[in-house]
Amino acid sequence: MKNQLIPRATAKRLPLYYRYLKVLLDSGKTKVSSTELSEAVKVDSATIRRDFSYFGELGKRGYGYDVESLLEFFGRMLTEDRLTSVALIGVGNLGSALLKYGFHQNNNIRISAAFDVKEDIVGRIVDGIPVYPMSDMKEQIQQQQIEVAILTIPSDKAQDVANELFEAGIRGIMNFTPVRLNAPENVHVQSIDLTNELQTLIYFLNHYNDNGESVE
Amino acid sequence: MKNQLIPRATAKRLPLYYRYLKVLLDSGKTKVSSTELSEAVKVDSATIRRDFSYFGELGKRGYGYDVESLLEFFGRMLTEDRLTSVALIGVGNLGSALLKYGFHQNNNIRISAAFDVKEDIVGRIVDGIPVYPMSDMKEQIQQQQIEVAILTIPSDKAQDVANELFEAGIRGIMNFTPVRLNAPENVHVQSIDLTNELQTLIYFLNHYNDNGESVE
Repeated sequence: MKNQLIPRATAKRLPLYYRYLKVLLDSGKTKVSSTELSEAVKVDSATIRRDFSYFGELGKRGYGYDVESLLEFFGRMLTEDRLTSVALIGVGNLGSALLKYGFHQNNNIRISAAFDVKEDIVGRIVDGIPVYPMSDMKEQIQQQQIEVAILTIPSDKAQDVANELFEAGIRGIMNFTPVRLNAPENVHVQSIDLTNELQTLIYFLNHYNDNGESVE
Repeated sequence: MKNQLIPRATAKRLPLYYRYLKVLLDSGKTKVSSTELSEAVKVDSATIRRDFSYFGELGKRGYGYDVESLLEFFGRMLTEDRLTSVALIGVGNLGSALLKYGFHQNNNIRISAAFDVKEDIVGRIVDGIPVYPMSDMKEQIQQQQIEVAILTIPSDKAQDVANELFEAGIRGIMNFTPVRLNAPENVHVQSIDLTNELQTLIYFLNHYNDNGESVE
């Protein structure tokens, strides 16, 4: 790997490339062209070639890329060879669904602890994952050396709980609350606001025509 | 509103501005500056001013923006005054959580029909929403004039079901499967791949240091 910064946009496409290459390998393909890849992952081939150029020489124009080498390379980049433990904060409807989501399938991510306030769930093992009381959160996160948390709690608690997570040493949060969290500079927050996503989709349907032009 | 195309990036921030302005209004504030807004929604104030410039004259530099006018304007843009019916395809773990998610709170979106193959759930009303068999999907979507669907089904069924949705007249899909859907040009697909999001977050933690620089 070249010793340089990979742009954030490129990094965001890595898991996408990776997953598709696994499909190719499973079906016995050994080579893939940027055009084929482009068709499959819906990223234009110029972007794919530019993305891949950050990784050094992984393919030759006209010959296609070697699927297995690419996979090995991406796998290393996405740290599939090391288990990442994740904490889930808030075992409500969405939290429960995420416990069952299967992040561990095909990759080395595991939710290893969940936290909630509800007495009927705390102290139990749900879908193979122990649910601890919120009062044990900091201690458990530090003991288990967890650095990533998924936040699925009510909005009015989000910032307070996030602050506790920062104190406990969490460095990455996947935030499902609509709250824009204040976080220290060394913490990455990735927000997924489902209502916002749905509103934006509907906005586009109502305001843009089939060619992507404004209909106002 | 000016008769021009609003950039996609700007449109994506609208729901964010909208939700925060509601908070301000509820707390009795009538004016907000781009600096205050910037602080709250974590978008730099130059971007906010540029975004707002697309909407015409809604505020004057140095005087701040009028909260109520902004809200009324955004509300109109996000079509809060008209109910949008949404179909949910696949009442599994994630689908069930989304039925309970409360998209209808604070906005005019309602999941009005759900579809599944499981006999024990089909024909029942779950969280106030009727669950129909997949065989009725096309008919119900057309009868109810639903144009937006949330897709939470197994990956191996995703493209086939999406094709049926396109035939039924669906124009927007919120796709929770990791499959990159082939869609007609007049259909908008908004994909939320939770594994991809989590992998990317972990990638950043492992490969970038606190200053956003590569640690390779």
